[in-house]
Amino acid sequence: MNFIRKIVKPSSKNDGSFYHDIKQLLNFAPKNIEHYEKAFTHRSLKLSDKDGNAFNYERLEFLGDAMLGSVIASYLYKKVPKGTEGYLTQMRSKIVSREHLNELGKDLNLIRFVKSNIAKENVGDNIHGNIFEALIGAIYLDKGYNYCKKFVYEKVIIPYVDIEKLEGKITSYKGLIIEWCQKQKKKYSIETYEDTGNELVKHFSVKISIDGEQIAKGRSTSKKKAEEQASKRAYFALQNQITHT
Amino acid sequence: MNFIRKIVKPSSKNDGSFYHDIKQLLNFAPKNIEHYEKAFTHRSLKLSDKDGNAFNYERLEFLGDAMLGSVIASYLYKKVPKGTEGYLTQMRSKIVSREHLNELGKDLNLIRFVKSNIAKENVGDNIHGNIFEALIGAIYLDKGYNYCKKFVYEKVIIPYVDIEKLEGKITSYKGLIIEWCQKQKKKYSIETYEDTGNELVKHFSVKISIDGEQIAKGRSTSKKKAEEQASKRAYFALQNQITHT
Repeated sequence: MNFIRKIVKPSSKNDGSFYHDIKQLLNFAPKNIEHYEKAFTHRSLKLSDKDGNAFNYERLEFLGDAMLGSVIASYLYKKVPKGTEGYLTQMRSKIVSREHLNELGKDLNLIRFVKSNIAKENVGDNIHGNIFEALIGAIYLDKGYNYCKKFVYEKVIIPYVDIEKLEGKITSYKGLIIEWCQKQKKKYSIETYEDTGNELVKHFSVKISIDGEQIAKGRSTSKKKAEEQASKRAYFALQNQITHT
Repeated sequence: MNFIRKIVKPSSKNDGSFYHDIKQLLNFAPKNIEHYEKAFTHRSLKLSDKDGNAFNYERLEFLGDAMLGSVIASYLYKKVPKGTEGYLTQMRSKIVSREHLNELGKDLNLIRFVKSNIAKENVGDNIHGNIFEALIGAIYLDKGYNYCKKFVYEKVIIPYVDIEKLEGKITSYKGLIIEWCQKQKKKYSIETYEDTGNELVKHFSVKISIDGEQIAKGRSTSKKKAEEQASKRAYFALQNQITHT
């Protein structure tokens, strides 16, 4: 596998920045870094492993998609005990929609790890979701189902899955916050600014203040998403007040 | 949950025949038998649990489908390292097709456990596959992913999954056996007879003999399936001779 090491970043446990970055992303130590190298290798590099099999993320995408689907299924099954089979199927489709997975991949800035012969701007939007799925596949191969589940909970379910919003009961947290402030005659400000930093993808940050006090912040790849993220956090921060008024 | 116990068979660890039968089917001891009671309860009974949630197999079907899909995905990923994403997707669809799942459910005679207000003959063919999926969901809830995986390997992958046949490279093992016998000028007999025994569903058995010696047996819910099963076994029993002649 040395020929791969030359192309992707060095990955030995001691000196590899790829290993270090992946470990930070996963919140656990990878056992076999090669799975992750594969998860971020685009087929345009035309790499093969020692057995002559294609070395790129496409097959891992298939595996990760199945693992993600089963983790989300078990989450929904337990979370919504009254949900019918049709309801559960529909909710899962929303969570694992191509659009949503692309968003997740972008928010984790996974593209920074991708090795490709095609310029990153030209690979299309789906690469973000595809490598996100491939990463889940790599985790499964490297550490098994429970790590896979833990990762999906940490990176998908806890930060992004909101049953009420998916059900369409809440269409916009920003709307809720504004409505509540107006009703309560509170002054609010939703301040948005570009905050890309060193990242490849443009990012925006949002600060929400109520009566001069900062309540929540959000940061994402679009203004709208960052606003919703901050508003959702503000909603949960204020939930006791909101639901009792 | 006592009201359920009255309808489904008694299920305490010591005296329950349902518990005993399920344990035999699973090859391991169930922890919480209620999951399995649910997996075999049809909605026509209109049962609820103590929290007022529907007590039937429909939600478990959703969960089991996802678990089965992920186990098959990981099996195929490892088994066929040269298979592209498209190939893997197609093979999985064949394995988890409605028709195939119904066949699996029938072969395990799962219908014998079903509690329903509708006569078993009137529930339609899909019930066999549906309760098979629900059973996988129940195993996941009761014992976790690894038991689920073990069950799918024992009951689906090892006895039924044959990559060459799924790929269409071998369309009929019976054809292969006959062709080989004719080429080798060997006498063969394929003997089929009804063999239902005490079961609810009609069963057939098949014996294959070559030059007067019994080589393999098969048993299934249709003549054709029993013949293919016996022929496949005969093929593997004779493989060394077949491939070297």
